[in-house]
Amino acid sequence: MQSSNSLNSDEKLQVRKLEISDKNKGFMELLQQLTVCDSVSDKEFEERFREISSCGDDHFICVVEDDQSGKIIATGSVFIEKKFIRNCGKVGHIEDVVVDSNARGRQLGKKIIGFLTDHARSTGCYKVILDCSLENKLFYEKCGYKQKEIQMVKYFN
Amino acid sequence: MQSSNSLNSDEKLQVRKLEISDKNKGFMELLQQLTVCDSVSDKEFEERFREISSCGDDHFICVVEDDQSGKIIATGSVFIEKKFIRNCGKVGHIEDVVVDSNARGRQLGKKIIGFLTDHARSTGCYKVILDCSLENKLFYEKCGYKQKEIQMVKYFN
Repeated sequence: MQSSNSLNSDEKLQVRKLEISDKNKGFMELLQQLTVCDSVSDKEFEERFREISSCGDDHFICVVEDDQSGKIIATGSVFIEKKFIRNCGKVGHIEDVVVDSNARGRQLGKKIIGFLTDHARSTGCYKVILDCSLENKLFYEKCGYKQKEIQMVKYFN
Repeated sequence: MQSSNSLNSDEKLQVRKLEISDKNKGFMELLQQLTVCDSVSDKEFEERFREISSCGDDHFICVVEDDQSGKIIATGSVFIEKKFIRNCGKVGHIEDVVVDSNARGRQLGKKIIGFLTDHARSTGCYKVILDCSLENKLFYEKCGYKQKEIQMVKYFN
């Protein structure tokens, strides 16, 4: 019956806005599973947190906190770009989506993407976009996304 | 000798920041060559212009004005996303790059991309990214970009 309990537990898990106290709940360690993410000081974290918060709904970072462990086990962000095209339209850009490797298979990624997509829609975007690896294409298709273009990058050293 | 004069003339063409008066210099008509871009009222344009300007260097739209015709013949934008990963790093996102169909072949696209890339670097970004069609891949490679991921999109109706 454990899987049934686990399912019920997962259904209760809420997606919420990132809080400043999430640094002490493993938020940065979770991001380390995504890419290079050195530990930052509390001061650096707070400064960046306030910069992002000052954008209000135009830059939204969400998290899922595991009610058992108190750890952040999933996150993703969306920021809203204001354009002149499409009748002064807006576009949501989803970035930095990651689910804890120990919490995979619990639909948390889908939950995060659904939340961020709804956020973009509610702020009046005409579309929402994201870049991903080919191996994650199927996951995003299950979330209602379609492949359109290719991503080009230039790194500065 | 016309092509030589034209070349000298092109070398003098400067990339500069979008100004509010550029609406009357064909800026919106240029964007129409990129995608759906209905005409907007002066009030709507000014409101969006001020919203974007309020981001300072974090959302920069540049243009090239033809010194002969006084028309805007190239444009592109970059906005700076603030992250927690990469030691609270920043990423430049290039969007809405277009060169007037009558001004192609004059290296204006390369000039715009160079300008926006330099802007991203000067604001401290560790990388700059953009999405493009497969047919534009070679152009961006000539600008120093490399293909990395794929772009997924969801449109709202």
